[in-house]
Amino acid sequence: MLEQKIKDTIRDVADFPKPGIIFKDITPILKDPVLCKEITQALAEQLQSLNVDVIAGIESRGFLFGMSLAQALNVPFVPIRKAGKLPYRTIQQSYALEYGTATLEVHEDAFISGQKVLIHDDLLATGGTVVAASQLIEKLGAHVAGYSFIINLEFLNGKQRLQTFNPNVFSLISYL
Amino acid sequence: MLEQKIKDTIRDVADFPKPGIIFKDITPILKDPVLCKEITQALAEQLQSLNVDVIAGIESRGFLFGMSLAQALNVPFVPIRKAGKLPYRTIQQSYALEYGTATLEVHEDAFISGQKVLIHDDLLATGGTVVAASQLIEKLGAHVAGYSFIINLEFLNGKQRLQTFNPNVFSLISYL
Repeated sequence: MLEQKIKDTIRDVADFPKPGIIFKDITPILKDPVLCKEITQALAEQLQSLNVDVIAGIESRGFLFGMSLAQALNVPFVPIRKAGKLPYRTIQQSYALEYGTATLEVHEDAFISGQKVLIHDDLLATGGTVVAASQLIEKLGAHVAGYSFIINLEFLNGKQRLQTFNPNVFSLISYL
Repeated sequence: MLEQKIKDTIRDVADFPKPGIIFKDITPILKDPVLCKEITQALAEQLQSLNVDVIAGIESRGFLFGMSLAQALNVPFVPIRKAGKLPYRTIQQSYALEYGTATLEVHEDAFISGQKVLIHDDLLATGGTVVAASQLIEKLGAHVAGYSFIINLEFLNGKQRLQTFNPNVFSLISYL
């Protein structure tokens, strides 16, 4: 079963990025091309009924399956990046981190007004980054049609937070 | 013809990341799912005879088509990242920038000894980052089998520099 195969392949790395955190390392998944195709296919199937117009992927790990997913659904891919990386005119959204703030950017012509945008990242934690990405999309007159992750760290309640924006929050596996 | 279609789609952005540089913005390519598939297919065809074992993609833009390319060739994908991003044990390689230095990292178990590794990035400039990536791969006992880019800025002579490591330097388009 795909869910078990993903969980068996992910590597837990203790104390990264800081003491007490157990990081879910997806690089062993990337080494398995068959599993990568199964994941892309499963992500695409979850989104079938949404008829999204665009996949927006969050830098950097959201680029990996975000791009594959866009190609599987035959829709455009838009990168949402950290501040200072995108070359053309951008809009910005800052968000709170545990200490300080971070800023995301997207090109101001990334979306056409009214487009239904699916946000993809590899992992949902507290959802802070994804909320900022949602705000960027809405600022440009497009709509967030849903969220797609490989992994949901359910104990951090990111799903509940995102559902105040849109009820369609999908993931392939969850950790309680 | 694919070459012309890519050149017509890329956007030139003046003075990014600093005055005097004309940046080749590939985000308009990412908006065109048919063109993305054609690019992945064309990159894969260039590499057919190399029989590579692994695609290594350089953070962040090298993740986009690097992952697609790995799936097209049905081989593992290994991310090469900026320092501090990979969770497991890593090895590092620093390289010179115009001012100061930067550092790349890869997981120490990223490759199996003797594997033939193809390095992918979206754009070849002077080749400094790609040389550092090559050194990481060789340090881990794997071999660089070649290089694959969408864009080669030929006037910066990166291709000549890389060919001292390996003669197989491919790109889909070049700017003289």
